[in-house]
Amino acid sequence: MVKKDLFLGVDTGGTGVKYVVTDQDGSVMTSGEVPTDPASIAVSMQRLGAAVADTLGGKSGFPRLAGLGMACAGIVNSATGQLGRSPNLPGWQGRNLPRDIGTVFHKIPVALANDVNGALYGEFRQGAGRNCRNLVMVALGTGVGGGVIIDSKLVVGAHFGAGEIGHMNLDPAGPSCTCGGRGCLEAWAGSTGLLRRAREAAVEGKADDELARLVARRGELLNTLDLAELASSGDAVATEIFAEAGRRLGQAIGNIVNLLDPDRVIVGGGVAQAGELILKPCRETVPGLVLAKESKNVPVVSAELGPLAAAVGAACLAREMGIPG
Amino acid sequence: MVKKDLFLGVDTGGTGVKYVVTDQDGSVMTSGEVPTDPASIAVSMQRLGAAVADTLGGKSGFPRLAGLGMACAGIVNSATGQLGRSPNLPGWQGRNLPRDIGTVFHKIPVALANDVNGALYGEFRQGAGRNCRNLVMVALGTGVGGGVIIDSKLVVGAHFGAGEIGHMNLDPAGPSCTCGGRGCLEAWAGSTGLLRRAREAAVEGKADDELARLVARRGELLNTLDLAELASSGDAVATEIFAEAGRRLGQAIGNIVNLLDPDRVIVGGGVAQAGELILKPCRETVPGLVLAKESKNVPVVSAELGPLAAAVGAACLAREMGIPG
Repeated sequence: MVKKDLFLGVDTGGTGVKYVVTDQDGSVMTSGEVPTDPASIAVSMQRLGAAVADTLGGKSGFPRLAGLGMACAGIVNSATGQLGRSPNLPGWQGRNLPRDIGTVFHKIPVALANDVNGALYGEFRQGAGRNCRNLVMVALGTGVGGGVIIDSKLVVGAHFGAGEIGHMNLDPAGPSCTCGGRGCLEAWAGSTGLLRRAREAAVEGKADDELARLVARRGELLNTLDLAELASSGDAVATEIFAEAGRRLGQAIGNIVNLLDPDRVIVGGGVAQAGELILKPCRETVPGLVLAKESKNVPVVSAELGPLAAAVGAACLAREMGIPG
Repeated sequence: MVKKDLFLGVDTGGTGVKYVVTDQDGSVMTSGEVPTDPASIAVSMQRLGAAVADTLGGKSGFPRLAGLGMACAGIVNSATGQLGRSPNLPGWQGRNLPRDIGTVFHKIPVALANDVNGALYGEFRQGAGRNCRNLVMVALGTGVGGGVIIDSKLVVGAHFGAGEIGHMNLDPAGPSCTCGGRGCLEAWAGSTGLLRRAREAAVEGKADDELARLVARRGELLNTLDLAELASSGDAVATEIFAEAGRRLGQAIGNIVNLLDPDRVIVGGGVAQAGELILKPCRETVPGLVLAKESKNVPVVSAELGPLAAAVGAACLAREMGIPG
């Protein structure tokens, strides 16, 4: 009898399937990535299976896997195993994930979560959220996602729709958002919104401003790291764009703290690499909005695990299946 | 041996201590109220003890009480039993509630909650939230309070500060709030805010407007029922004040649904007696703000239990002590 001493954590996005193999303590032993086939979960699983087999010294290593966790972009029904709406994985929508996973990894117990909840759970067990019971994560990417842990358990909601922090409405007259609304957090703090505001500021400002030159030079390739670099060099307009994003992030976090009073709030995602440019104004905003004195100084911290967070979290979820919260 | 077949649910506010005695199914057998002594929990408990003794045919009836639940205004630390900040109960602050309760009701198991969480739990078990697992309540009173149930358990937060829905910031440039901030939900939807807006509208409008006459006639006695009556008679300005409160309530509920995706949202409190004047614009606002299609039509319903909700909820909490969620 092979000893079941390993867990496979998988994070499926529109372009890549990242994976980690962990030991029973959740420590990552190896990691890798295969290209996603957005049209076919079967093809993607075969690629994953081949890569994991290489890692474990052949498919004969699969029986060592005690469980598989999959974090997946889209609405993940962790009760039925079905993947709901998932714009970046059209061929995966409506599929029963454990069944499709099982055709490659036979009879393996499967734990499921959406991608942001996977990352949150990774931070919770192995990263910036260790030793918390109540935890909130805001993920600042192209859009803004999020997740909530209460009493050490992921909050998925009645329709697996929880965690849409990016569409918290912070001012009905605010800037327009990709969702069709106005004044969502995402319109200020997601990279699409941030870069739009940078381009607008470049048009409004003088043509020889640093920001205008950056926008002209980078064109469609402009990203938030360019903008952060300019801000860090002392450019006031670029700095203010991040500061405004930070204050709006602080408003959203203040609202969440009033509602849930978590132990800690984690800020992750690519835009969060702007670091203190966003986090400082955010942290300065929160205490003034929180009513309960004891909760005003909730730590707002950076994520620690980076791009593997969701795969690590998925592995932890697999490890803890059946363990009561 | 006396059969322990009854539960005592208590709701302590700044003026009155309401109580209910329930059977094991949570049905209210009797109810009553004694005046609170805000300076002394001991005096208040003696009054409560005397009233309950009358109900049970003397103190010899106390052993029938299998448990006591107390909902209390203020920050209730349900882990230590201590009452934290409680502006309306100055003499109770810092007291260990189970210990003080025990001097009158000897050796009785005690469950604790803050007052809004008590009301939410009452609605959850016996009222508008039956058969839900994930539930949010917004209580529109002088101020605006709230509570959250996730997976059938009250969310109290890391510092027992959760549920401050009234101070969700909906626009940093909005009207000023009693908390010192601007644009909190409470500034639009609490009675203090609503009545202030009515008085402002009366000043801005013509002196012979219906609203101006109502404000002049009622003076300091003006309340939200006066205003609701005027709105129901067709007055456009009064109607718009409630509609604006309803839209802001809808904005707050939309934000909560994006974050937590509950089964249902309950709206209670005195201001909610304005009914559809607030609830209709609220319900019209929510779906446009909620991202997940499945969660857009979350039912937003009126509370059912009225002023005894928190006492009933406290009795239910007492009944369920030790029963895993």
